[in-house]
Amino acid sequence: MTDFRELWDQLAPIGRDPVSGGYLRYAWEPAELACRDWFRAQADARDMPVEEDGNGNLVAWRGEGPAILTGSHFDSVPHGGAYDGPLGIVSAFLALDRLSERPRKRIGVAAFAEEEGARFGVPCLGSRLMAGVLDPARAAALTDRSGVTLGEALGREPAGRTDLLDRVGCFVELHVEQGRALEVPVGVGSAIWPHGRWRLDFTGEGNHAGTTRMADRHDPTLTYAYTVLAANKEARLRGAHATMGRVAVEPNATNAVPSLVQGWLDVRAAEAATLAAMVEAIHKRAVERATRDGTAVTLTEESVSPEVAFDGGLVARLARVLDAPVLPTGAGHDAGVLSAYVLTAMLFVRNPTGVSHSPAEHATDADCEAGVDALARVLDELG
Amino acid sequence: MTDFRELWDQLAPIGRDPVSGGYLRYAWEPAELACRDWFRAQADARDMPVEEDGNGNLVAWRGEGPAILTGSHFDSVPHGGAYDGPLGIVSAFLALDRLSERPRKRIGVAAFAEEEGARFGVPCLGSRLMAGVLDPARAAALTDRSGVTLGEALGREPAGRTDLLDRVGCFVELHVEQGRALEVPVGVGSAIWPHGRWRLDFTGEGNHAGTTRMADRHDPTLTYAYTVLAANKEARLRGAHATMGRVAVEPNATNAVPSLVQGWLDVRAAEAATLAAMVEAIHKRAVERATRDGTAVTLTEESVSPEVAFDGGLVARLARVLDAPVLPTGAGHDAGVLSAYVLTAMLFVRNPTGVSHSPAEHATDADCEAGVDALARVLDELG
Repeated sequence: MTDFRELWDQLAPIGRDPVSGGYLRYAWEPAELACRDWFRAQADARDMPVEEDGNGNLVAWRGEGPAILTGSHFDSVPHGGAYDGPLGIVSAFLALDRLSERPRKRIGVAAFAEEEGARFGVPCLGSRLMAGVLDPARAAALTDRSGVTLGEALGREPAGRTDLLDRVGCFVELHVEQGRALEVPVGVGSAIWPHGRWRLDFTGEGNHAGTTRMADRHDPTLTYAYTVLAANKEARLRGAHATMGRVAVEPNATNAVPSLVQGWLDVRAAEAATLAAMVEAIHKRAVERATRDGTAVTLTEESVSPEVAFDGGLVARLARVLDAPVLPTGAGHDAGVLSAYVLTAMLFVRNPTGVSHSPAEHATDADCEAGVDALARVLDELG
Repeated sequence: MTDFRELWDQLAPIGRDPVSGGYLRYAWEPAELACRDWFRAQADARDMPVEEDGNGNLVAWRGEGPAILTGSHFDSVPHGGAYDGPLGIVSAFLALDRLSERPRKRIGVAAFAEEEGARFGVPCLGSRLMAGVLDPARAAALTDRSGVTLGEALGREPAGRTDLLDRVGCFVELHVEQGRALEVPVGVGSAIWPHGRWRLDFTGEGNHAGTTRMADRHDPTLTYAYTVLAANKEARLRGAHATMGRVAVEPNATNAVPSLVQGWLDVRAAEAATLAAMVEAIHKRAVERATRDGTAVTLTEESVSPEVAFDGGLVARLARVLDAPVLPTGAGHDAGVLSAYVLTAMLFVRNPTGVSHSPAEHATDADCEAGVDALARVLDELG
């Protein structure tokens, strides 16, 4: 029987940056295409035919009839970790190998395209197209940083919703946990926190850094910096999460007071009301500080995802079968998209440091083996 | 007699961005080369032979013997203003036209290369090479953002110090004032404030923005933001200038707590001791905050320019001849570099809003005409 490490080591070198140790696997770029080749080889070795759904999503099938789908994604954030995504695909093939008998139901192993949104800017792109919640023509026109469209990368306009989901009764996604909330090897997901992204534009007056008196400045950097600290405080007050990890500055020169600073705000909370109150409070404090700095600030919503609560009966059943704890997550997943259309569950594998979206992301081999066993038991239970 | 506006309008469209209204004139790129073509045409029209010094600096000569040099630069910061640099060159040609008689001394009109350092990162590149304070081989290897070397842009390794400066007895640079310190049309420069650039590297732990609890984070964005506000406060306390207008973030993604934030600190003060004390105070506060955030901060000096005090006797003489006030500036200039080698003076033309390094930079035509007249009187006085 193939052990976890043997299969994992086949995938590990693909797209790994030798300097950071992190992964650069962007949808349909060479490293991610090499992961797809590996996927097809794994399916071949198990006599599983591979279906491409016209949206860039791959599914390897075994058996006949209404299906249980499992899997995750290959693509990474820039310099992301090895586990976020690929763990769910590797574990799916290994779980199939370990099923004591041929499952009663059909099983599909899925590799979803562009889950991170790192190339075309829309997270869960493949699953959104599969579910029919993203317009194929709009998706085809999305461009990456080099100006390549999704249509060009895919070689066609995406197919959008097909009959594939109609052939699926249930979806289970195994994923590495991305915080430190899980203290045993495997847990069952209860919900995905509501979350959203906003852009704050701080506008001031571009000027010379050497000659402009401090009193004459309208420096948007100050308003931005104050808002970064305010967002952190507001999140701590509410037991929620706020991050301003992306910034763009015009002209971004050492000897110039900027004319414009754009800061992106990522907010997550257990409840939608908390989320809304927090964004309002951060915006209010930014506006107050702008008055003091002689700058202006505008808030633009880029995306808001409501809470996803996985089916309570299924969550309870899997927690009982696995004798595993139940926990929510602050991260978005393809499972969150598909849960509106098919019965969906998630399994999490412990993350000892809680680090994710970073080269330091890690899970132990023993916990990954436990994840494979748990997924096999779930497929057996549902099949 | 050519008036200011007539000559100014010839130069104004070259390299102007139609959207921002600011200038994109980078050394040896098409817009700046077009300015050089204009320079050669102006020299031709006045029967002035043009010398290229092997470092990319142009000088148009009139007369014989020991020379008075005047002029400035064509290149701009990104989306910079029209006046910073070109005003000194246009005024030089017009001042020559207005000299009542053939000057007793030789006069050279200079266009220095890469004064802003916007392409190759070293301000006053052309004058530093001319003065022999920048190694030609080191300069040749400097690269722009596209990887083009200075040697490639220039078509050769720079010549470095030649006999040109030995043929010059005096340099006068006319420049638009860059703050609001000048309340009459023309002033005489007394000094350039000591100034410097430092890079602060804020190192934390890259992580997932959705799943990492606030208490588990080591977010360098917070330390950076606190330092931006601290730099502003420390400068205000001392009547000095501090700016953090440039930033770089890794990975700079909306859904990732950054692993690294780099912030550049530009500091200027009337006295070197104030400058040093301010940088020390800002660094100390950054380190204190880093302890609280669980991050680390390092400070790297990128360049420090000591105070330049122009020759006191010459300053007093020009102020008397022009009946003009005397004032220092916080901005670096080619005049600051050359002042170590030849008797040097600066004239400033009033800036009504104080805005510079921005499309909104402005001087009135009447003040520019007054600048031309003042420069003509200075050339006459010295010649």
